[in-house]
Amino acid sequence: MVKFANRMTNLKPAAVYELVGEIAKIEAQENRKIVPLYVGNPGKESIPTDKIAEITAEVLSDEEAVKTLLYGPTEGFQPLRNELTAYLAENFGIGTPSDRIIITSGATQAIELCARVFCNEGDTIITENPTFVGSLGSFNGFGINIVGVSMDTDGINLDKLEEALKANPETRFIYVIPNFHNPTSWTMTLEKRKRLYEMALKYKTMILEDDAYRDLRYFGEDLPTLKSMDSEGIVLYAGSFSKVISPGLRVGYLMANERFMDKISAAKQVTDVHTTTLSQKVVYGFMKKYGLEGHIDEIRDIYRKKMQLTFDLLEEHLGDKIEYVKPEGGLYVYCKLPEHIDVLEFYQKGIDMGVAVVYGSAFYVDPGEKSQYFRINFSQPSEAQLKKGIEILGQVMKLFN
Amino acid sequence: MVKFANRMTNLKPAAVYELVGEIAKIEAQENRKIVPLYVGNPGKESIPTDKIAEITAEVLSDEEAVKTLLYGPTEGFQPLRNELTAYLAENFGIGTPSDRIIITSGATQAIELCARVFCNEGDTIITENPTFVGSLGSFNGFGINIVGVSMDTDGINLDKLEEALKANPETRFIYVIPNFHNPTSWTMTLEKRKRLYEMALKYKTMILEDDAYRDLRYFGEDLPTLKSMDSEGIVLYAGSFSKVISPGLRVGYLMANERFMDKISAAKQVTDVHTTTLSQKVVYGFMKKYGLEGHIDEIRDIYRKKMQLTFDLLEEHLGDKIEYVKPEGGLYVYCKLPEHIDVLEFYQKGIDMGVAVVYGSAFYVDPGEKSQYFRINFSQPSEAQLKKGIEILGQVMKLFN
Repeated sequence: MVKFANRMTNLKPAAVYELVGEIAKIEAQENRKIVPLYVGNPGKESIPTDKIAEITAEVLSDEEAVKTLLYGPTEGFQPLRNELTAYLAENFGIGTPSDRIIITSGATQAIELCARVFCNEGDTIITENPTFVGSLGSFNGFGINIVGVSMDTDGINLDKLEEALKANPETRFIYVIPNFHNPTSWTMTLEKRKRLYEMALKYKTMILEDDAYRDLRYFGEDLPTLKSMDSEGIVLYAGSFSKVISPGLRVGYLMANERFMDKISAAKQVTDVHTTTLSQKVVYGFMKKYGLEGHIDEIRDIYRKKMQLTFDLLEEHLGDKIEYVKPEGGLYVYCKLPEHIDVLEFYQKGIDMGVAVVYGSAFYVDPGEKSQYFRINFSQPSEAQLKKGIEILGQVMKLFN
Repeated sequence: MVKFANRMTNLKPAAVYELVGEIAKIEAQENRKIVPLYVGNPGKESIPTDKIAEITAEVLSDEEAVKTLLYGPTEGFQPLRNELTAYLAENFGIGTPSDRIIITSGATQAIELCARVFCNEGDTIITENPTFVGSLGSFNGFGINIVGVSMDTDGINLDKLEEALKANPETRFIYVIPNFHNPTSWTMTLEKRKRLYEMALKYKTMILEDDAYRDLRYFGEDLPTLKSMDSEGIVLYAGSFSKVISPGLRVGYLMANERFMDKISAAKQVTDVHTTTLSQKVVYGFMKKYGLEGHIDEIRDIYRKKMQLTFDLLEEHLGDKIEYVKPEGGLYVYCKLPEHIDVLEFYQKGIDMGVAVVYGSAFYVDPGEKSQYFRINFSQPSEAQLKKGIEILGQVMKLFN
């Protein structure tokens, strides 16, 4: 009698999230700690807890306090929308007079809304492969046919993308993370961005640009976003405050051409009515009182140092055994093992010896796909954990020599 | 090239929400105020702003503060889930050892998750007709075939429900609001609840029980919920803190049998990862520090008084011109106009003369369906607004004599 909807068939908790449960279970059963280099959480020291507490107190004591606690508009707290529109225009050249912003419950909801609004079950989208597992979940959750296109270290492989577009002329959109891609941390070159945008126009499809890591650049210069090139209104732009203020507040946003906004807003309304107003006002208050730039500089200093430490530790303990491209930002280092090492075995030995990374196959459209990579996260672990964890990885590596 | 998904075809912003925009526009253009007796918001005086501010400050200053601002579990903040499980069991006999609670971003998301997890596009569900427009939106948002069954003043018409079940043997679930139904405020009798549950078992379908108004009883005794009768695990139970603490915090919940929980949780994860942790901790802190019961008693006193005032004003100004069942709780009075009066014309004259109610047809599965009713909300308006608004309704009525 009870049946689940077809769209639920391929929707499973992402492997990375499953690992959280599995590792907690091992830790409890075997009464030991495993150094967590696997999840992509911000570091505790990057969260401006005191400033958030201060702004929250102000929001809940001013004369508008009760309004914060009543229903708000589906599109979001208007002053935040205005502030964000100005911020994106001034700092990144993002947005035209035809674009609108809707505040979402994290960038995940921004991506989920695009899937919901534009894709029937069985419709095709194209993604980088590997890609962010949360987005794969959002797409799988609508029964979408996901075509993965392999990546080079300078971004999606455009020849293969063009093949995929030719093979799938009804592609609804191309989902990409041009800046500090998850899991690879690779960044798409400006040349590739331009060609990708032209290709989307040529094949009459759209682009969903996930720019959750935009602000986490520690070296080099910002590259123009796809959205900043979007004269034709075909780029859906998802952003987030999860990496620069707080993920627990659940505030993200979607910028899209006004011709899509009625549908996107109607979909948001029936999903959760609106995003928590208190969270939105805290983000707004933070932008007004402290500005994002100064705070982002602080976070960059924290993570630049941790990333550099990670490079040094990898050099010391794994040396010439692994290959990786040094990222200029983001939260991860994506490491390639020699061909003779089975990555899942490497991962398992890591767990046994007390360190958790994520095996690359967890990030693929087809979870069965073989990958020679593993991902290290350096934002959440402390320096001590990074030192211990990568030292253990070095010991694990010795088992394979 | 750009096409919306089929599921978006019937998804429009609900008429009630559209009214908010229309009325604001009229107020701005014509520089006048319209007394708002239409939306279903809690009254400002029912929001425990100071207590929420106090608890928020505690949450953001204790040693776990930073955890509040990092990612949390998809199923919700565990102490809140535990507290709520105990509260529902002790106060309402709700929940068996096989039931689980997931915290959602408002009851709207609880309902949306049921639609997403159990219904393919084109699948049939049955609802009371009229019913809550937000839920109609959530169902329409998945392209679900909604079969409306008319209501009597003691709840859904069971003969017609049985006919509908016979005609739709694959009905995924029956959606009902047994307590202080929106828009009618009618409450389903115990006898009907029992028979409804038996009927769901007989026809091998499920029940989605929306109990958002459960705590808002001002007269009479609580009736057992459908969930409290649920020995077979077929009732999905949606609840909310929007009416008793704050809608802006966006905290609701779904209780369901454990065999559904993996799918529900996976769907929640790809929608918004988790509900704002700060909101969840504020609700938890409120329950622990002040208890819900005392606060609910205060809200009941406020609304009981407003409802009584509404009865008195309707008697004074509309007297024998309208019919309605005096509700024992909820936020609305659902009034029937004499047959010779066109409700939409009555509504329009109200707007012209300075008061906004909602015409009954806004709440029907088929928005074209004729209704002789209009809905008054008494929770949001002040006593002065109620007096003025209902006085104007009396003047409007005179136009039709």
